[in-house]
Amino acid sequence: MRISDLGEFGLIELVQQWTQAAEPDSSLASQAQLRIAVPNGDDTAAITFPDGPATELYTTDTMVDGVHFTSATTPWHDLGWKAIASNISDVAAMGGDPVAALITLGLPAYTAVADIKELYAGMTEICGQYGARIIGGDMVRSPVAFVTVALTGIASGPPMVRTAAEPGHLVAVTGPVGSSAGGLRQLLAGADGDQYAESELIRQHRRPRPHIAAGKALVSAGVRSAMDVSDGLADDLGKLCAASGVSAIIHADQAPTLPALKSAFPDDWLDLALYGGEDYVLLFTASPDIMDVAMRKLLHAAAVVGEITEGTPGVVSVRDSAGKPVERGGAGWDHFAG
Amino acid sequence: MRISDLGEFGLIELVQQWTQAAEPDSSLASQAQLRIAVPNGDDTAAITFPDGPATELYTTDTMVDGVHFTSATTPWHDLGWKAIASNISDVAAMGGDPVAALITLGLPAYTAVADIKELYAGMTEICGQYGARIIGGDMVRSPVAFVTVALTGIASGPPMVRTAAEPGHLVAVTGPVGSSAGGLRQLLAGADGDQYAESELIRQHRRPRPHIAAGKALVSAGVRSAMDVSDGLADDLGKLCAASGVSAIIHADQAPTLPALKSAFPDDWLDLALYGGEDYVLLFTASPDIMDVAMRKLLHAAAVVGEITEGTPGVVSVRDSAGKPVERGGAGWDHFAG
Repeated sequence: MRISDLGEFGLIELVQQWTQAAEPDSSLASQAQLRIAVPNGDDTAAITFPDGPATELYTTDTMVDGVHFTSATTPWHDLGWKAIASNISDVAAMGGDPVAALITLGLPAYTAVADIKELYAGMTEICGQYGARIIGGDMVRSPVAFVTVALTGIASGPPMVRTAAEPGHLVAVTGPVGSSAGGLRQLLAGADGDQYAESELIRQHRRPRPHIAAGKALVSAGVRSAMDVSDGLADDLGKLCAASGVSAIIHADQAPTLPALKSAFPDDWLDLALYGGEDYVLLFTASPDIMDVAMRKLLHAAAVVGEITEGTPGVVSVRDSAGKPVERGGAGWDHFAG
Repeated sequence: MRISDLGEFGLIELVQQWTQAAEPDSSLASQAQLRIAVPNGDDTAAITFPDGPATELYTTDTMVDGVHFTSATTPWHDLGWKAIASNISDVAAMGGDPVAALITLGLPAYTAVADIKELYAGMTEICGQYGARIIGGDMVRSPVAFVTVALTGIASGPPMVRTAAEPGHLVAVTGPVGSSAGGLRQLLAGADGDQYAESELIRQHRRPRPHIAAGKALVSAGVRSAMDVSDGLADDLGKLCAASGVSAIIHADQAPTLPALKSAFPDDWLDLALYGGEDYVLLFTASPDIMDVAMRKLLHAAAVVGEITEGTPGVVSVRDSAGKPVERGGAGWDHFAG
């Protein structure tokens, strides 16, 4: 069987079995010192050291040329920013602060040094703004360019996880969705550099800003169930539901979007909002009481978009304001599907 | 300018400048909590948290198909073992224990699931033996297969570094060198699976055992200067000397080797011992007094092989027992050189 037959999530499930079956000898010193606070399955792993001040978070994310970006069209500065942003967003989803990054670059020998300088400029710019620091890494020759970031973080509260959604919870996001997908579409349609300053959508696509402050606000409000929106609202809610063993309903008309999205894409804005990726807002669920507390701590763009229900794990149905199912316009993103 | 013009170490030097110039806003909460115990430049980074129990270590290493291994000839189980081993060895070089690993796989869609299972079997086997645990990772589609491991560790003593070698120090290794290169040569010459059980060299090549216990023994003996031997004794000593601003002499006849190396390669064993990579023993320097304490804590295969001198930083001269220069048979390994 090829991994393309299994798909990304089938493969992840197998890997979890293979790694969990093999627990190391617990008599070893290093094992005695730690407790896995969040097992495999979330984007971010968490470890609590008994004598340590807090929970440590560990996440990693990779971008491959031709798969996750195109070096011919993605400015290297943007690539650096986004490679770090996706990892900071994973830390945000647990309610933590980013701390230290290891950068691995796979590069063809003909890569221009000036491009790598731009890549690091993008990475250090966002690291500086979020209080993270690049502390090391690895550089290797590779026929295809790739960037792997491994990021550590710290959470002072209990990390939010995907597995804690319950029937009766409301579902919300911490900011507008569909912006990045709208910006990408504008770029593909030929928007040039001048429009960058003018289009809020392109800005969101090129320089997404992870919701660290929102993540910490959620934890302090008592929220236990969250993830970040990287593959699209509907798709990511499906993953959260699968991990929690529940279903969900999205009320399409409640999905918050930037005004620029509707004006630029009067026909497609809802598809972009529901299925467009890379927004890096947080998706979370909570009981109505806790949701109320959380909403008061968040910025005005946050919105309740649905509810968790009993049902087949992972199934998300999208409804319009009359309660009728909304046709899905796009397909999910599977890293290995042919 | 292309990175192939600069070479790996020229590029690493530039990256250090780019990242160190950009220090994040120190008023941010996460920055206030940490101190960089070991700056960029060593294979492993280290952070001390003021309230934490120890120094935390962070390292990452990548293997790319066709560059660091050949998926057609490297068994996947071995690849998994070695991908983890090279990272554990970096933690050993600082005198730490490994704790938690994040695994990133870049895989072509046609990869067989059975191969990935074998890869994880190799990784969990060595993790189990060293008390480390796989806690997460990322899997992405890629036209070329690669494995990136990010590993955290803990050191209770001050981490050993590359920058602390001083003139007057003796140079030593914690075990035999050249074994892995000898094993590789046997494999390339057509040794089959049956010979695996018979050849200690092939075992060392396929399943190198990082020197964690030796690393901790060195720290407790007061050793401050170490790295692991991944690119060859002479080459790695050159890097240690460059980082410390010193020169070194290797006494070729003192390089410890397995008896099997000399008997299998009566003409080339010294070249393999001096320039063969992937042995994952530790290379360290110390004053004669501390060296004496360290040697009593190490296994019998450890040996003093040279001395640190004043001179052009990074220059290593190899001498025979009469003090005459030994001709170098091989070239260094540069990841980006054409």
